[in-house]
Amino acid sequence: MTVQTPTRHDLSLDDLHGSLTDPAMSAMNLLNEISMRYPAAISFAAGRPAEDFFDVADVHEYLGVFHDHLRTARGLTEQEARRLLLQYGRTKGIIHDLVREHLRIDEDIHVPAESIVVTVGCQEAMFLVLRALATSPQDVLLAVSPTYVGLTGAALLTGLPVWPVRGGDEGLDLADLRAQIGRARSRGLRPRALYLVPDSANPTGASLPPRLRQEVLDLASEEDFLLLEDNPYGFFGGGEPLPTLKAMDTERRVVYLGSFAKTALPGARIGYVVADQRISDGSLLADRLAMIKSMTTVNTSPIAQAVIGGALLKHGCSLRAANLRQAALYRRNLRLVLDGLAERFPPGHGVTWNTPPGGFFLVVTVPFQVDDELLEHSASHHGVIWTPMSHFCPDGGGERQLRLSLSQVTPETVGQGLDRLAALIGERLRQVSPATCPG
Amino acid sequence: MTVQTPTRHDLSLDDLHGSLTDPAMSAMNLLNEISMRYPAAISFAAGRPAEDFFDVADVHEYLGVFHDHLRTARGLTEQEARRLLLQYGRTKGIIHDLVREHLRIDEDIHVPAESIVVTVGCQEAMFLVLRALATSPQDVLLAVSPTYVGLTGAALLTGLPVWPVRGGDEGLDLADLRAQIGRARSRGLRPRALYLVPDSANPTGASLPPRLRQEVLDLASEEDFLLLEDNPYGFFGGGEPLPTLKAMDTERRVVYLGSFAKTALPGARIGYVVADQRISDGSLLADRLAMIKSMTTVNTSPIAQAVIGGALLKHGCSLRAANLRQAALYRRNLRLVLDGLAERFPPGHGVTWNTPPGGFFLVVTVPFQVDDELLEHSASHHGVIWTPMSHFCPDGGGERQLRLSLSQVTPETVGQGLDRLAALIGERLRQVSPATCPG
Repeated sequence: MTVQTPTRHDLSLDDLHGSLTDPAMSAMNLLNEISMRYPAAISFAAGRPAEDFFDVADVHEYLGVFHDHLRTARGLTEQEARRLLLQYGRTKGIIHDLVREHLRIDEDIHVPAESIVVTVGCQEAMFLVLRALATSPQDVLLAVSPTYVGLTGAALLTGLPVWPVRGGDEGLDLADLRAQIGRARSRGLRPRALYLVPDSANPTGASLPPRLRQEVLDLASEEDFLLLEDNPYGFFGGGEPLPTLKAMDTERRVVYLGSFAKTALPGARIGYVVADQRISDGSLLADRLAMIKSMTTVNTSPIAQAVIGGALLKHGCSLRAANLRQAALYRRNLRLVLDGLAERFPPGHGVTWNTPPGGFFLVVTVPFQVDDELLEHSASHHGVIWTPMSHFCPDGGGERQLRLSLSQVTPETVGQGLDRLAALIGERLRQVSPATCPG
Repeated sequence: MTVQTPTRHDLSLDDLHGSLTDPAMSAMNLLNEISMRYPAAISFAAGRPAEDFFDVADVHEYLGVFHDHLRTARGLTEQEARRLLLQYGRTKGIIHDLVREHLRIDEDIHVPAESIVVTVGCQEAMFLVLRALATSPQDVLLAVSPTYVGLTGAALLTGLPVWPVRGGDEGLDLADLRAQIGRARSRGLRPRALYLVPDSANPTGASLPPRLRQEVLDLASEEDFLLLEDNPYGFFGGGEPLPTLKAMDTERRVVYLGSFAKTALPGARIGYVVADQRISDGSLLADRLAMIKSMTTVNTSPIAQAVIGGALLKHGCSLRAANLRQAALYRRNLRLVLDGLAERFPPGHGVTWNTPPGGFFLVVTVPFQVDDELLEHSASHHGVIWTPMSHFCPDGGGERQLRLSLSQVTPETVGQGLDRLAALIGERLRQVSPATCPG
């Protein structure tokens, strides 16, 4: 009889892909896990859209609208419509023409529908682009730091090193970008692309001024690299909409990454990539991304695409107009958070924050260490959750900053949430400044 | 003024990932493209399920059933149900408990729901597993050859070399498996896993006899590798169902890859992986696959999951029972194709085929070269499409074989399709045997 110890394992963690032990990958898990362990905590952590306007009946309606569109506008028989909606389908998607219209109307972006690949959320789009670009150990990806964690994760899966570029006050430090390119080249490395979120960036909320947009396009041309423009928050910017890099792109330097998670429904998991770059064999980069997609997810669920297609059709392909209520809600939330911070943290105590005109996020800077341990303490002792900025800086930085998300704030809870945050910060300030607080 | 030539390209194909110029990746595109260029051709090429029972109304019904289930059986408020269906969600999925029930009822597989990751089709499940296992340049994947092209493609994306193992008449040549393991080890390489489709394999239609199933489980234990069991066709096997490897697995050696594309709806793009292997840090392999998934697709569309969840609920989680009509249709099609082949190709002309008891596929062997050029000729001159077997043998083989798919055959077209195939084969036989055909 063989006695097995109950702790015997089947696989060693060391025998699994290196990405799985990278702190960037564990961060996502850690943050999710904290929200689940402290469900009663007030959260300024989630990057999810507000749920005020969600309705399951919309899913049925949008499906119906798209189904009708197939029968009437596209003239399909019922059998053909059924096949398009329920069978395996086109790798590049079935709503690419509607996405093109949406980009034309809402973003003044003019691209052929064939340059669009409809993906399983923007995350898949990112993965496809990085997988295509990671060719040799000499390739590196530049990314404005702090960086969206999904970009860091996708890069880890493809083995593409990410080189941080300073964001600075304007959302991109062009001098540092030039310096990093030079540094990479001097080591025999090849910067393939720069990843950036020019509008209401996650996590800083920064937006690039128009002048800087033109300058980075010019530099990309001069130094021969691509720009990976990620634009999930463009409709929620606060002021007048600024032109996207893709709208200003006359040389096909920009690969545009889009999402319907914030502008329609996250539950459809529909994103897309515009890749109109011409490849030496006459194909489009989009066609090559589709080849990779055929080996990761085959095609994006046509049922899920139909839900977003129906939403686009219902709103004449303009989601900017359809999101006016949502945009107003996020602006209200931003105001609530900024006013609440100003009330609780008068100048002179070393607590500061940026004041983006819109978006989902802002950054609070404090005169003490902000890490996962503090977050755990904040959740367990103060009942408030936020995100340590250091998670967005895999190469260091952000150690005294925290990201506040305002997308799920409500007028009912924001005051209490900020009171709890003030209690936490007050507690730490007393610890770091014993001279001013005797005892 | 700068003059640009119109043929100027933006990116060189050589500067994109190596997988993009691998013949295995181009094969998928080539085959799709031929079907599109010759829409009038009768196709024995598609691996898609029959559409006879498709109905868009089912999507609405299944969504409704799952929504009701959330409200009643799970006791969620409407707000909670809405959040689950429409918001970002759990990386490992929201129908894992229903999938577990389905596996228990239909396959006698008993696993914790936490060991299941719901994926964007079985293709994503494959990619996640290979990405996790490809750790170092010493790792290799064994795969029964001929092999499903999606496995070859996913391996290319992760850089994991695939070593073919002979399938032979029984679906797996155990002696060759032992030999390949020895060969790999002698070169300092580490065989991580064997990929196989034990039931009605694509492309051969072969099913492993029960004795061989036990033997390969024993060998996996003895030689310490995993078995990646892919089972899309298990309900359409023809005879009495055989136990899956996972049902026989007492040591958590088997990672089970499942799909609802053939048993429910391809358009939902829902698959899953059962990964109950324990990792040295106390987690399950499923948890590690979910970490990778969070960086490829974040989570599988809960709307698409709800469609499959509703289908499972409607049928008491037994899709075997729900697929009796489909199984009968495929058996009828198989009979039509086998009878039609026997009528057209009497013995003695060197045209033979296997006779699987069920499944979607069979293999025809001919005494001449079968390649993409012949397929092109077949489509353009004879109006019939099939798949060259060589596409399933990236390391050589299958040069005189073609795969016939019977899943979309109809009694109305099968005779004409086989007449066209017979015309093509007759034409080639006359070319290769000039002695018997003077002139």
